[in-house]
Amino acid sequence: MTTDFTATKRQFHLPQGVIYLDGNSLGPLPKAAAARVAETMLAEWGELLIRAWNQAGWMAMPARVGDRIARLIGAEPGHVVMGDTLSIKVYQALASCLQMRPGRRIILSDTGNFPSDLYMAQGLCRTLGGAYALKTVAPEDVLAAIDESTAVVMITEVDYRTGRRHDMAALSARAHAVGALIIWDLAHSAGAFPVGVAAGGADFAVGCSYKYLNSGPGGPAFVYVAPRHAETVQPALAGWLGHEAPFAFDRTYRPGAGVERMRVGTPPILQLAALDAALDVWDSVDLEDLRAQSLALTDRFIAGVEASCPMLTLVTPRPHAERGSQVSFRHAEGYAIMQALIAEGVIGDFRAPDILRFGFTPLYIGAEEVDGAVAILARIMASGSWDRPEFKARAKVT
Amino acid sequence: MTTDFTATKRQFHLPQGVIYLDGNSLGPLPKAAAARVAETMLAEWGELLIRAWNQAGWMAMPARVGDRIARLIGAEPGHVVMGDTLSIKVYQALASCLQMRPGRRIILSDTGNFPSDLYMAQGLCRTLGGAYALKTVAPEDVLAAIDESTAVVMITEVDYRTGRRHDMAALSARAHAVGALIIWDLAHSAGAFPVGVAAGGADFAVGCSYKYLNSGPGGPAFVYVAPRHAETVQPALAGWLGHEAPFAFDRTYRPGAGVERMRVGTPPILQLAALDAALDVWDSVDLEDLRAQSLALTDRFIAGVEASCPMLTLVTPRPHAERGSQVSFRHAEGYAIMQALIAEGVIGDFRAPDILRFGFTPLYIGAEEVDGAVAILARIMASGSWDRPEFKARAKVT
Repeated sequence: MTTDFTATKRQFHLPQGVIYLDGNSLGPLPKAAAARVAETMLAEWGELLIRAWNQAGWMAMPARVGDRIARLIGAEPGHVVMGDTLSIKVYQALASCLQMRPGRRIILSDTGNFPSDLYMAQGLCRTLGGAYALKTVAPEDVLAAIDESTAVVMITEVDYRTGRRHDMAALSARAHAVGALIIWDLAHSAGAFPVGVAAGGADFAVGCSYKYLNSGPGGPAFVYVAPRHAETVQPALAGWLGHEAPFAFDRTYRPGAGVERMRVGTPPILQLAALDAALDVWDSVDLEDLRAQSLALTDRFIAGVEASCPMLTLVTPRPHAERGSQVSFRHAEGYAIMQALIAEGVIGDFRAPDILRFGFTPLYIGAEEVDGAVAILARIMASGSWDRPEFKARAKVT
Repeated sequence: MTTDFTATKRQFHLPQGVIYLDGNSLGPLPKAAAARVAETMLAEWGELLIRAWNQAGWMAMPARVGDRIARLIGAEPGHVVMGDTLSIKVYQALASCLQMRPGRRIILSDTGNFPSDLYMAQGLCRTLGGAYALKTVAPEDVLAAIDESTAVVMITEVDYRTGRRHDMAALSARAHAVGALIIWDLAHSAGAFPVGVAAGGADFAVGCSYKYLNSGPGGPAFVYVAPRHAETVQPALAGWLGHEAPFAFDRTYRPGAGVERMRVGTPPILQLAALDAALDVWDSVDLEDLRAQSLALTDRFIAGVEASCPMLTLVTPRPHAERGSQVSFRHAEGYAIMQALIAEGVIGDFRAPDILRFGFTPLYIGAEEVDGAVAILARIMASGSWDRPEFKARAKVT
């Protein structure tokens, strides 16, 4: 292993007394990000004003930062661009795929997909007037459900609740065999393990940057378009910065070169600056090392919890190939248990109706944190200390 | 006049030696914004991590900040929400309007609209399969062109090149008289003068925050939905944060309450924090004072330029009611003249093919800056110093 994970940990601000197992929801603050954003505001926005779009390279940031993400997801250079939110990028990819498969009316997804992906598909189908439909099947039934009626398969590679990981190559191959397209949502993949969108046959891939990539709350999303489609796709969300010549101010849209056409409006420069700084951490990380360390940590957590908390049921598949970098357990009182854990400084996530979700991020989580979390969880379960009104009362937003 | 514009000016960071007449493209840095973003990153993201969504009020920011904008655009409280980019909000509003007027197939706009608005309409029409069409007419012909075939009129209140201002009440009334809807783009209105979306009959209004509202590069957009539509509109971009209960993780979309349904994905908290701080400046501003000062400054600039630069042709209408807070002049060598101005510290904007555009923002621009800009422009025009290769060579992005 060539990656020094004690060195990467030092690059994050981690609050005292907290074991943070929720980096798959919001990654922690990279120390360099605060300085970078301050510089962007004071030296660039403050001093250069409008000139910063050229002189500070703002206009080129969505593609330049996209290229840094490309390495992490196994994309060809020049085929990833940043912008908008993940939901918007899902819509963009879906609308493109439906246009590319006229005559086919089914968007196929699974019941484990993140709801917003399903909602965006529902909104698109409704907007198109009802001729199109979203069909969802159980995660294990996706492969068999792909057929000649399928226009596009839309799958999140790692299930946000169970942590179950789909086989990208197998599903992509099946989709292509019947003439369908496939969109991969990498929300829980990018930065969690080596992803291979090119090798895995993705037509489009989308993802967010604020989970394993640590860009901060509401950081921009990314979109990948396979080179075979990049010069022909017609964006539904045809914004001026995706135009061939934005500053010609033509009144007719002409798509820009390649993936640049997936840009829409003015990019969020402060959030992009935070992301750009956050990506510096990755320069010293070998993704195979990351995967090995992630599996060691998740194996250790599973073994520890199963040995000490028999009342918790493992939801995440055990085989390494079938999971990402999170581990989930099920318990009917999962909400209260998670609140009790958070009160003791172990921050994970609850996902309705009964999932305790823990993310393992080797950049700043090691065996010591795993053992600490297991010990606290075991104590809470043995003592029943979660069974208190203050832990059972649900906040409006969890 | 009760507003103290010397006090508002002190709240901005303005570089030495610059007369900034481009706040209608990117507003300058409010001093409080840098501190606010640093606090958001270090104290909230850094220390609270995922808990900040509740404990630091992040989840409520799009609506809370939207309410601060509501005052500036004459909207009813609770009917504006922040998020995405202006282009995305244009698409959202357009798609909603087409659904609300089944059987009508025309989106009507004008040739002076910002190209991205036209592009988003073109992308929507193409996505819908060709039954719909965008029709554009000259700005002065919009009123007469609204008829029973019109589903929705989409107009930017102030023309980004000429500075010509449409009559919101008159166009809205005409649209409603024939059963059409109307969307107002307030990109060059919000923060430029008192806007009245409720009084003016807007069905939807959209705008950006990085021009006259000074939120910084890529700050979030806003959308207003008139109360009469807020509980019935079906969003085309149906994201999870517009769902009635985002954290129930239902697999079927149900729109949230009122304008909240226009939210899509995870909001850009760093950009929202900058905007929130930028809006503090407005707490001490009377919008009628702002308008009076803006008209005084633009009248002064027009008079000064016309007296000293006879080769420049005024493009902006003279009557106060027919313009916003910008002044544009035309010259065949406008690009080179603007580069020469910028080289001497007067920053305005060039807009193809021949427009010199100057924005006047009383929060930090006064008579002294107007006179200084006029003197420098007069010197450049009298000496012909713009006629140099370095000013005539076009940058890739202007």
